[in-house]
Amino acid sequence: MKWVRAIDGETTTYGIVESDDVAFVSGSPFGRWERTGETRKLASVRLTYPVTPGSFYCQGRNYATHNNVLYDDFGAKYPASKMPDPSQRSNNALIADGETIVIPADAGPNVHPEGELVVVIGQRCKNVSEADALSKVLGYTVGNDIGQRDWLKSDNMIWRAKNSDTFKPMGPWIETEVDLDALVTRVRINGELEMEHRTNTMIFGIAQVIATMTRYVTLHPGDVIWMGSEGSVRQISHGDVVEIEIEGIGKITNPVIRAS
Amino acid sequence: MKWVRAIDGETTTYGIVESDDVAFVSGSPFGRWERTGETRKLASVRLTYPVTPGSFYCQGRNYATHNNVLYDDFGAKYPASKMPDPSQRSNNALIADGETIVIPADAGPNVHPEGELVVVIGQRCKNVSEADALSKVLGYTVGNDIGQRDWLKSDNMIWRAKNSDTFKPMGPWIETEVDLDALVTRVRINGELEMEHRTNTMIFGIAQVIATMTRYVTLHPGDVIWMGSEGSVRQISHGDVVEIEIEGIGKITNPVIRAS
Repeated sequence: MKWVRAIDGETTTYGIVESDDVAFVSGSPFGRWERTGETRKLASVRLTYPVTPGSFYCQGRNYATHNNVLYDDFGAKYPASKMPDPSQRSNNALIADGETIVIPADAGPNVHPEGELVVVIGQRCKNVSEADALSKVLGYTVGNDIGQRDWLKSDNMIWRAKNSDTFKPMGPWIETEVDLDALVTRVRINGELEMEHRTNTMIFGIAQVIATMTRYVTLHPGDVIWMGSEGSVRQISHGDVVEIEIEGIGKITNPVIRAS
Repeated sequence: MKWVRAIDGETTTYGIVESDDVAFVSGSPFGRWERTGETRKLASVRLTYPVTPGSFYCQGRNYATHNNVLYDDFGAKYPASKMPDPSQRSNNALIADGETIVIPADAGPNVHPEGELVVVIGQRCKNVSEADALSKVLGYTVGNDIGQRDWLKSDNMIWRAKNSDTFKPMGPWIETEVDLDALVTRVRINGELEMEHRTNTMIFGIAQVIATMTRYVTLHPGDVIWMGSEGSVRQISHGDVVEIEIEGIGKITNPVIRAS
Protein backbone atom coordinates (compact mmCIF):
# COMPACT_ATOMS: atom_id res chain seq x y z
CA MET A 1 0.00 0.00 0.00
CA LYS A 2 1.29 3.47 -0.91
CA TRP A 3 0.31 6.27 1.47
CA VAL A 4 0.44 9.80 0.08
CA ARG A 5 -0.25 13.11 1.78
CA ALA A 6 -2.06 15.68 -0.33
CA ILE A 7 -1.77 19.38 0.44
CA ASP A 8 -4.23 22.15 -0.38
CA GLY A 9 -3.31 25.48 1.20
CA GLU A 10 -2.49 24.55 4.78
CA THR A 11 -4.71 21.46 4.81
CA THR A 12 -3.16 18.03 4.39
CA THR A 13 -5.09 14.82 3.73
CA TYR A 14 -3.84 11.26 3.58
CA GLY A 15 -4.77 8.96 0.75
CA ILE A 16 -3.97 5.56 -0.71
CA VAL A 17 -2.61 5.23 -4.23
CA GLU A 18 -4.67 2.79 -6.29
CA SER A 19 -3.34 2.55 -9.85
CA ASP A 20 -3.75 6.10 -11.23
CA ASP A 21 -6.00 7.32 -8.42
CA VAL A 22 -5.76 8.49 -4.85
CA ALA A 23 -8.47 7.22 -2.48
CA PHE A 24 -8.68 9.71 0.36
CA VAL A 25 -9.14 8.83 4.02
CA SER A 26 -10.10 10.62 7.20
CA GLY A 27 -7.52 10.23 9.93
CA SER A 28 -4.05 9.00 9.10
CA PRO A 29 -2.05 5.80 8.76
CA PHE A 30 -0.59 6.59 12.20
CA GLY A 31 -3.90 6.09 13.94
CA ARG A 32 -7.47 5.31 12.99
CA TRP A 33 -8.53 6.03 9.44
CA GLU A 34 -11.35 5.23 7.07
CA ARG A 35 -11.97 5.85 3.41
CA THR A 36 -14.01 8.96 2.71
CA GLY A 37 -15.15 7.63 -0.67
CA GLU A 38 -13.49 10.54 -2.48
CA THR A 39 -10.98 9.65 -5.17
CA ARG A 40 -8.97 11.83 -7.52
CA LYS A 41 -6.41 11.22 -10.24
CA LEU A 42 -2.97 10.97 -8.66
CA ALA A 43 -1.56 13.25 -11.35
CA SER A 44 -4.01 16.01 -10.33
CA VAL A 45 -3.15 15.90 -6.62
CA ARG A 46 -0.43 18.09 -5.13
CA LEU A 47 1.59 15.91 -2.76
CA THR A 48 3.70 17.06 0.13
CA TYR A 49 6.30 14.95 1.96
CA PRO A 50 4.39 12.01 3.39
CA VAL A 51 4.90 12.72 7.08
CA THR A 52 6.01 15.52 9.40
CA PRO A 53 7.98 13.62 12.00
CA GLY A 54 7.76 14.25 15.74
CA SER A 55 11.38 13.15 16.10
CA PHE A 56 13.67 13.07 13.06
CA TYR A 57 16.69 10.77 13.36
CA CYS A 58 19.35 9.73 10.84
CA GLN A 59 21.78 6.85 11.23
CA GLY A 60 24.52 8.50 9.21
CA ARG A 61 27.80 6.97 8.08
CA ASN A 62 26.08 3.63 7.70
CA TYR A 63 27.71 2.22 4.55
CA ALA A 64 31.35 1.20 4.34
CA THR A 65 32.43 3.17 1.29
CA HIS A 66 30.66 6.34 2.40
CA ASN A 67 32.52 6.22 5.69
CA ASN A 68 35.85 5.94 3.93
CA VAL A 69 35.05 8.80 1.59
CA LEU A 70 33.99 11.10 4.42
CA TYR A 71 36.88 10.19 6.63
CA ASP A 72 39.65 10.13 4.03
CA ASP A 73 38.56 12.80 1.59
CA PHE A 74 36.42 15.16 3.63
CA GLY A 75 38.15 15.17 6.99
CA ALA A 76 35.31 13.79 9.10
CA LYS A 77 35.98 14.64 12.71
CA TYR A 78 35.93 11.11 14.15
CA PRO A 79 36.00 7.48 13.06
CA ALA A 80 32.82 5.57 12.37
CA SER A 81 30.71 4.49 15.32
CA LYS A 82 30.93 1.05 16.90
CA MET A 83 27.19 0.90 17.55
CA PRO A 84 24.10 2.66 16.18
CA ASP A 85 24.62 6.34 16.99
CA PRO A 86 22.00 8.38 15.15
CA SER A 87 22.19 12.10 14.64
CA GLN A 88 19.22 14.38 14.18
CA ARG A 89 17.68 16.39 11.40
CA SER A 90 15.12 19.23 11.51
CA ASN A 91 11.70 19.54 9.94
CA ASN A 92 12.39 23.02 8.56
CA ALA A 93 14.55 21.34 5.90
CA LEU A 94 11.88 19.00 4.52
CA ILE A 95 10.53 19.47 1.00
CA ALA A 96 8.44 17.26 -1.27
CA ASP A 97 9.12 15.48 -4.53
CA GLY A 98 9.31 18.13 -7.26
CA GLU A 99 10.07 21.06 -4.97
CA THR A 100 13.21 23.11 -5.42
CA ILE A 101 16.45 22.64 -3.50
CA VAL A 102 17.84 26.11 -2.74
CA ILE A 103 21.57 26.31 -2.02
CA PRO A 104 22.20 29.22 0.37
CA ALA A 105 23.91 32.20 -1.30
CA ASP A 106 27.04 31.98 0.86
CA ALA A 107 27.48 28.19 0.64
CA GLY A 108 30.57 26.98 -1.20
CA PRO A 109 30.09 24.61 -4.15
CA ASN A 110 30.69 21.52 -2.03
CA VAL A 111 27.00 20.53 -1.82
CA HIS A 112 26.32 16.82 -2.30
CA PRO A 113 23.14 14.74 -2.48
CA GLU A 114 22.85 11.48 -0.55
CA GLY A 115 20.19 8.89 -1.43
CA GLU A 116 18.72 7.25 1.67
CA LEU A 117 16.11 4.75 2.71
CA VAL A 118 13.72 6.34 5.22
CA VAL A 119 12.07 4.18 7.89
CA VAL A 120 8.66 5.50 8.99
CA ILE A 121 7.60 4.30 12.44
CA GLY A 122 4.01 3.09 12.71
CA GLN A 123 3.68 2.09 16.34
CA ARG A 124 4.91 3.54 19.60
CA CYS A 125 7.77 1.41 20.84
CA LYS A 126 10.36 1.27 23.64
CA ASN A 127 12.74 -1.56 24.46
CA VAL A 128 11.76 -3.45 21.35
CA SER A 129 13.81 -6.53 20.39
CA GLU A 130 15.53 -6.88 17.02
CA ALA A 131 13.10 -9.68 16.24
CA ASP A 132 10.10 -7.40 16.79
CA ALA A 133 11.56 -4.15 15.47
CA LEU A 134 10.36 -4.33 11.88
CA SER A 135 6.78 -4.94 13.06
CA LYS A 136 6.82 -1.38 14.45
CA VAL A 137 7.53 0.09 11.02
CA LEU A 138 4.61 1.44 8.99
CA GLY A 139 6.60 1.58 5.77
CA TYR A 140 9.45 3.16 3.87
CA THR A 141 10.02 6.25 1.80
CA VAL A 142 12.92 7.92 -0.02
CA GLY A 143 15.14 10.72 1.27
CA ASN A 144 17.88 12.97 -0.08
CA ASP A 145 20.16 13.88 2.83
CA ILE A 146 21.85 16.87 1.19
CA GLY A 147 24.94 18.22 2.92
CA GLN A 148 27.27 21.18 2.53
CA ARG A 149 30.55 19.49 3.33
CA ASP A 150 32.66 22.57 4.06
CA TRP A 151 30.22 23.44 6.85
CA LEU A 152 30.34 19.84 8.04
CA LYS A 153 34.02 20.45 8.61
CA SER A 154 34.04 24.07 9.78
CA ASP A 155 31.06 24.03 12.15
CA ASN A 156 30.91 22.07 15.37
CA MET A 157 27.25 21.20 14.72
CA ILE A 158 25.46 19.98 11.60
CA TRP A 159 22.60 22.47 11.73
CA ARG A 160 23.20 24.39 8.47
CA ALA A 161 25.44 21.76 6.83
CA LYS A 162 22.59 19.25 6.91
CA ASN A 163 19.48 21.25 7.87
CA SER A 164 19.41 24.38 5.76
CA ASP A 165 15.91 24.86 4.35
CA THR A 166 15.15 22.47 1.43
CA PHE A 167 18.10 20.16 2.24
CA LYS A 168 15.81 17.23 3.10
CA PRO A 169 13.66 16.18 0.12
CA MET A 170 11.48 13.20 1.17
CA GLY A 171 8.78 11.20 -0.59
CA PRO A 172 6.89 10.62 -2.73
CA TRP A 173 4.92 8.19 -0.55
CA ILE A 174 5.19 5.64 2.23
CA GLU A 175 5.31 2.14 0.75
CA THR A 176 4.11 -0.43 3.29
CA GLU A 177 4.95 -3.55 1.27
CA VAL A 178 8.69 -3.68 0.84
CA ASP A 179 11.14 -6.54 0.27
CA LEU A 180 14.15 -4.89 1.90
CA ASP A 181 16.70 -7.18 0.29
CA ALA A 182 15.35 -6.47 -3.19
CA LEU A 183 15.67 -2.67 -2.92
CA VAL A 184 18.16 -0.85 -5.16
CA THR A 185 19.13 2.79 -4.60
CA ARG A 186 20.03 4.98 -7.58
CA VAL A 187 21.13 8.62 -7.63
CA ARG A 188 20.88 10.51 -10.91
CA ILE A 189 21.95 14.06 -11.71
CA ASN A 190 20.45 15.49 -14.88
CA GLY A 191 19.40 11.97 -15.83
CA GLU A 192 22.88 10.47 -15.53
CA LEU A 193 23.37 7.61 -13.13
CA GLU A 194 25.89 8.64 -10.46
CA MET A 195 25.40 5.87 -7.89
CA GLU A 196 23.69 2.50 -7.81
CA HIS A 197 23.81 0.02 -4.95
CA ARG A 198 21.74 -2.53 -3.10
CA THR A 199 19.95 -0.61 -0.39
CA ASN A 200 19.88 -3.11 2.45
CA THR A 201 23.65 -3.38 2.95
CA MET A 202 23.85 -0.91 5.82
CA ILE A 203 26.49 -1.39 8.51
CA PHE A 204 23.76 -1.12 11.14
CA GLY A 205 20.55 -2.68 9.84
CA ILE A 206 17.08 -1.32 10.47
CA ALA A 207 16.17 -3.81 13.19
CA GLN A 208 19.44 -3.24 15.02
CA VAL A 209 19.05 0.55 14.88
CA ILE A 210 15.47 0.44 16.19
CA ALA A 211 16.35 -2.04 18.94
CA THR A 212 19.35 0.01 20.06
CA MET A 213 17.58 3.36 19.89
CA THR A 214 14.55 2.17 21.83
CA ARG A 215 16.67 1.17 24.79
CA TYR A 216 16.81 4.95 25.41
CA VAL A 217 14.31 6.63 23.13
CA THR A 218 10.59 6.02 22.63
CA LEU A 219 9.77 5.99 18.95
CA HIS A 220 6.33 7.32 18.12
CA PRO A 221 4.09 6.86 15.08
CA GLY A 222 5.35 9.24 12.40
CA ASP A 223 8.92 9.41 13.64
CA VAL A 224 11.47 8.74 10.92
CA ILE A 225 14.93 7.22 10.80
CA TRP A 226 17.00 7.92 7.69
CA MET A 227 19.40 5.04 7.14
CA GLY A 228 22.48 6.66 5.61
CA SER A 229 23.98 6.73 2.13
CA GLU A 230 26.59 4.79 0.21
CA GLY A 231 29.68 6.14 -1.55
CA SER A 232 29.85 9.77 -2.56
CA VAL A 233 28.10 11.54 -5.40
CA ARG A 234 29.38 14.64 -7.19
CA GLN A 235 28.33 18.17 -6.29
CA ILE A 236 24.98 19.58 -7.31
CA SER A 237 24.72 23.17 -8.45
CA HIS A 238 22.35 25.76 -9.91
CA GLY A 239 20.36 24.31 -12.80
CA ASP A 240 20.86 20.65 -11.93
CA VAL A 241 18.05 18.18 -11.36
CA VAL A 242 18.73 15.45 -8.79
CA GLU A 243 16.76 12.25 -8.53
CA ILE A 244 16.84 9.62 -5.80
CA GLU A 245 15.19 6.37 -6.73
CA ILE A 246 14.78 3.33 -4.54
CA GLU A 247 13.53 0.54 -6.78
CA GLY A 248 10.71 -1.11 -4.86
CA ILE A 249 9.54 2.17 -3.29
CA GLY A 250 9.58 5.14 -5.69
CA LYS A 251 11.63 8.19 -6.60
CA ILE A 252 11.92 11.88 -5.82
CA THR A 253 13.14 14.45 -8.33
CA ASN A 254 14.16 17.95 -7.30
CA PRO A 255 15.58 20.85 -9.28
CA VAL A 256 18.44 22.83 -7.75
CA ILE A 257 18.95 26.59 -7.66
CA ARG A 258 21.39 28.80 -5.84
CA ALA A 259 19.92 31.69 -3.83
CA SER A 260 21.11 35.08 -5.07
CA MET B 1 0.57 36.66 29.67
CA LYS B 2 1.23 33.05 30.69
CA TRP B 3 0.20 30.36 28.19
CA VAL B 4 -0.33 26.87 29.55
CA ARG B 5 -1.24 23.67 27.76
CA ALA B 6 -3.63 21.39 29.59
CA ILE B 7 -3.77 17.69 28.83
CA ASP B 8 -6.67 15.29 29.31
CA GLY B 9 -6.02 11.85 27.85
CA GLU B 10 -4.63 12.61 24.41
CA THR B 11 -6.37 15.98 24.11
CA THR B 12 -4.43 19.17 24.75
CA THR B 13 -5.98 22.61 25.17
CA TYR B 14 -4.29 25.98 25.52
CA GLY B 15 -5.25 28.39 28.23
CA ILE B 16 -4.20 31.66 29.80
CA VAL B 17 -3.27 31.86 33.47
CA GLU B 18 -5.22 34.59 35.27
CA SER B 19 -4.34 34.67 38.98
CA ASP B 20 -5.40 31.22 40.25
CA ASP B 21 -7.42 30.30 37.18
CA VAL B 22 -6.88 29.07 33.65
CA ALA B 23 -9.07 30.67 30.97
CA PHE B 24 -9.23 28.18 28.09
CA VAL B 25 -9.10 29.11 24.43
CA SER B 26 -9.88 27.44 21.13
CA GLY B 27 -6.93 27.42 18.75
CA SER B 28 -3.46 28.18 20.03
CA PRO B 29 -1.10 31.08 20.66
CA PHE B 30 0.68 30.07 17.43
CA GLY B 31 -2.29 31.02 15.28
CA ARG B 32 -5.81 32.28 15.78
CA TRP B 33 -7.41 31.72 19.13
CA GLU B 34 -10.38 32.93 21.13
CA ARG B 35 -11.55 32.44 24.66
CA THR B 36 -14.08 29.64 25.07
CA GLY B 37 -15.44 31.15 28.27
CA GLU B 38 -14.46 28.07 30.27
CA THR B 39 -12.22 28.63 33.27
CA ARG B 40 -10.83 26.23 35.85
CA LYS B 41 -8.59 26.50 38.89
CA LEU B 42 -4.97 26.26 37.77
CA ALA B 43 -4.24 23.83 40.62
CA SER B 44 -6.88 21.43 39.27
CA VAL B 45 -5.56 21.40 35.69
CA ARG B 46 -2.98 18.84 34.55
CA LEU B 47 -0.40 20.69 32.48
CA THR B 48 1.90 19.23 29.86
CA TYR B 49 4.96 20.94 28.41
CA PRO B 50 3.68 24.11 26.77
CA VAL B 51 4.57 23.32 23.15
CA THR B 52 5.58 20.35 20.99
CA PRO B 53 8.11 21.96 18.68
CA GLY B 54 8.29 21.33 14.96
CA SER B 55 12.04 21.93 15.07
CA PHE B 56 13.91 21.71 18.36
CA TYR B 57 17.23 23.58 18.49
CA CYS B 58 19.65 24.27 21.34
CA GLN B 59 22.49 26.78 21.30
CA GLY B 60 24.68 24.80 23.63
CA ARG B 61 27.98 25.90 25.20
CA ASN B 62 26.69 29.42 25.38
CA TYR B 63 28.07 30.63 28.73
CA ALA B 64 31.75 31.15 29.43
CA THR B 65 32.14 29.09 32.58
CA HIS B 66 30.12 26.17 31.23
CA ASN B 67 32.39 26.01 28.21
CA ASN B 68 35.47 25.86 30.39
CA VAL B 69 33.99 23.15 32.59
CA LEU B 70 33.02 20.98 29.64
CA TYR B 71 36.29 21.49 27.83
CA ASP B 72 38.65 21.19 30.77
CA ASP B 73 36.89 18.71 33.03
CA PHE B 74 34.73 16.65 30.71
CA GLY B 75 36.88 16.36 27.61
CA ALA B 76 34.56 18.11 25.16
CA LYS B 77 35.57 17.13 21.66
CA TYR B 78 36.18 20.61 20.25
CA PRO B 79 36.60 24.22 21.34
CA ALA B 80 33.64 26.55 21.63
CA SER B 81 32.09 27.89 18.43
CA LYS B 82 32.99 31.25 16.92
CA MET B 83 29.42 31.91 15.79
CA PRO B 84 25.98 30.57 16.74
CA ASP B 85 26.09 26.87 15.96
CA PRO B 86 23.00 25.21 17.43
CA SER B 87 22.61 21.50 17.92
CA GLN B 88 19.33 19.64 17.97
CA ARG B 89 17.17 17.89 20.51
CA SER B 90 14.30 15.43 20.04
CA ASN B 91 10.69 15.59 21.14
CA ASN B 92 10.71 12.06 22.58
CA ALA B 93 12.72 13.45 25.51
CA LEU B 94 10.23 16.16 26.57
CA ILE B 95 8.38 15.91 29.87
CA ALA B 96 6.33 18.42 31.86
CA ASP B 97 6.82 20.10 35.20
CA GLY B 98 6.29 17.48 37.90
CA GLU B 99 6.93 14.46 35.71
CA THR B 100 9.69 12.00 36.54
CA ILE B 101 13.19 12.00 35.08
CA VAL B 102 14.18 8.37 34.47
CA ILE B 103 17.91 7.66 34.24
CA PRO B 104 18.44 4.66 31.93
CA ALA B 105 19.50 1.50 33.78
CA ASP B 106 22.88 1.28 32.04
CA ALA B 107 23.79 4.97 32.35
CA GLY B 108 26.77 5.76 34.57
CA PRO B 109 26.22 8.21 37.46
CA ASN B 110 27.51 11.18 35.48
CA VAL B 111 24.05 12.66 34.81
CA HIS B 112 23.82 16.43 35.21
CA PRO B 113 20.96 18.92 35.00
CA GLU B 114 21.38 22.16 33.07
CA GLY B 115 19.00 25.09 33.62
CA GLU B 116 18.18 26.89 30.38
CA LEU B 117 16.09 29.71 29.02
CA VAL B 118 13.85 28.44 26.20
CA VAL B 119 12.88 30.79 23.37
CA VAL B 120 9.49 29.93 21.82
CA ILE B 121 9.06 31.22 18.28
CA GLY B 122 5.73 32.92 17.54
CA GLN B 123 6.02 33.94 13.90
CA ARG B 124 7.44 32.28 10.81
CA CYS B 125 10.71 33.99 9.99
CA LYS B 126 13.62 33.73 7.55
CA ASN B 127 16.46 36.21 7.07
CA VAL B 128 15.36 38.26 10.05
CA SER B 129 17.65 41.03 11.30
CA GLU B 130 18.96 41.18 14.86
CA ALA B 131 16.84 44.29 15.33
CA ASP B 132 13.65 42.42 14.38
CA ALA B 133 14.49 39.02 15.85
CA LEU B 134 12.86 39.40 19.25
CA SER B 135 9.58 40.48 17.63
CA LYS B 136 9.30 36.93 16.22
CA VAL B 137 9.36 35.42 19.70
CA LEU B 138 6.05 34.51 21.33
CA GLY B 139 7.58 34.14 24.77
CA TYR B 140 9.91 32.19 27.01
CA THR B 141 9.80 29.07 29.11
CA VAL B 142 12.18 27.05 31.29
CA GLY B 143 14.15 23.95 30.27
CA ASN B 144 16.34 21.37 31.95
CA ASP B 145 18.85 20.11 29.36
CA ILE B 146 19.88 16.94 31.17
CA GLY B 147 22.97 15.18 29.86
CA GLN B 148 24.79 11.91 30.52
CA ARG B 149 28.36 13.15 30.17
CA ASP B 150 30.11 9.79 29.68
CA TRP B 151 27.96 9.23 26.60
CA LEU B 152 28.71 12.77 25.46
CA LYS B 153 32.33 11.68 25.39
CA SER B 154 32.01 8.07 24.19
CA ASP B 155 29.39 8.50 21.46
CA ASN B 156 29.91 10.43 18.25
CA MET B 157 26.37 11.79 18.42
CA ILE B 158 24.36 13.26 21.29
CA TRP B 159 21.23 11.18 20.77
CA ARG B 160 21.14 9.23 24.06
CA ALA B 161 23.47 11.56 26.02
CA LYS B 162 21.03 14.43 25.58
CA ASN B 163 17.83 12.87 24.20
CA SER B 164 17.06 9.79 26.27
CA ASP B 165 13.38 9.81 27.20
CA THR B 166 12.58 12.30 30.01
CA PHE B 167 15.89 14.19 29.62
CA LYS B 168 14.15 17.41 28.50
CA PRO B 169 11.78 18.76 31.17
CA MET B 170 10.18 21.98 29.86
CA GLY B 171 7.59 24.35 31.29
CA PRO B 172 5.52 25.22 33.18
CA TRP B 173 4.21 27.85 30.77
CA ILE B 174 5.19 30.33 28.07
CA GLU B 175 5.58 33.79 29.58
CA THR B 176 5.09 36.47 26.93
CA GLU B 177 6.06 39.47 29.09
CA VAL B 178 9.70 39.12 29.98
CA ASP B 179 12.42 41.60 30.88
CA LEU B 180 15.36 39.54 29.64
CA ASP B 181 17.97 41.48 31.60
CA ALA B 182 16.09 40.99 34.86
CA LEU B 183 15.93 37.18 34.61
CA VAL B 184 17.85 35.07 37.13
CA THR B 185 18.37 31.32 36.68
CA ARG B 186 18.58 29.05 39.72
CA VAL B 187 19.15 25.31 39.89
CA ARG B 188 18.24 23.48 43.08
CA ILE B 189 18.68 19.83 43.99
CA ASN B 190 16.60 18.65 46.96
CA GLY B 191 15.94 22.28 47.78
CA GLU B 192 19.60 23.30 47.94
CA LEU B 193 20.78 26.04 45.65
CA GLU B 194 23.46 24.64 43.32
CA MET B 195 23.68 27.43 40.73
CA GLU B 196 22.48 31.02 40.45
CA HIS B 197 23.31 33.43 37.66
CA ARG B 198 21.86 36.22 35.59
CA THR B 199 20.20 34.53 32.62
CA ASN B 200 20.83 37.00 29.83
CA THR B 201 24.62 36.75 29.82
CA MET B 202 24.86 34.26 27.00
CA ILE B 203 27.88 34.36 24.68
CA PHE B 204 25.50 34.44 21.71
CA GLY B 205 22.38 36.42 22.60
CA ILE B 206 18.88 35.53 21.51
CA ALA B 207 18.67 38.09 18.71
CA GLN B 208 22.05 37.06 17.32
CA VAL B 209 21.15 33.38 17.39
CA ILE B 210 17.81 33.95 15.61
CA ALA B 211 19.37 36.26 13.02
CA THR B 212 22.19 33.82 12.28
CA MET B 213 19.97 30.74 12.19
CA THR B 214 17.41 32.31 9.88
CA ARG B 215 20.00 32.99 7.23
CA TYR B 216 19.71 29.22 6.60
CA VAL B 217 16.74 27.92 8.53
CA THR B 218 13.11 29.03 8.54
CA LEU B 219 11.81 29.21 12.09
CA HIS B 220 8.13 28.37 12.44
CA PRO B 221 5.61 29.13 15.18
CA GLY B 222 6.17 26.64 17.98
CA ASP B 223 9.82 25.97 17.20
CA VAL B 224 12.06 26.32 20.24
CA ILE B 225 15.64 27.35 20.83
CA TRP B 226 17.17 26.41 24.17
CA MET B 227 19.85 28.93 25.05
CA GLY B 228 22.46 26.93 26.96
CA SER B 229 23.47 26.69 30.60
CA GLU B 230 26.05 28.28 32.87
CA GLY B 231 28.67 26.55 34.99
CA SER B 232 28.21 22.94 36.00
CA VAL B 233 25.87 21.43 38.57
CA ARG B 234 26.49 18.20 40.48
CA GLN B 235 25.08 14.86 39.42
CA ILE B 236 21.47 13.91 39.99
CA SER B 237 20.58 10.41 41.05
CA HIS B 238 17.71 8.19 42.17
CA GLY B 239 15.59 9.92 44.79
CA ASP B 240 16.69 13.46 44.03
CA VAL B 241 14.34 16.29 43.12
CA VAL B 242 15.70 18.86 40.68
CA GLU B 243 14.25 22.30 40.20
CA ILE B 244 15.04 24.86 37.51
CA GLU B 245 13.75 28.33 38.24
CA ILE B 246 14.03 31.37 36.05
CA GLU B 247 12.90 34.32 38.11
CA GLY B 248 10.59 36.33 35.88
CA ILE B 249 9.19 33.23 34.13
CA GLY B 250 8.55 30.31 36.48
CA LYS B 251 10.01 27.02 37.64
CA ILE B 252 9.91 23.31 36.88
CA THR B 253 10.42 20.62 39.51
CA ASN B 254 11.08 17.00 38.58
CA PRO B 255 11.82 13.95 40.72
CA VAL B 256 14.55 11.59 39.55
CA ILE B 257 14.56 7.80 39.50
CA ARG B 258 16.89 5.25 37.99
CA ALA B 259 15.31 2.57 35.78
CA SER B 260 15.87 -0.91 37.12
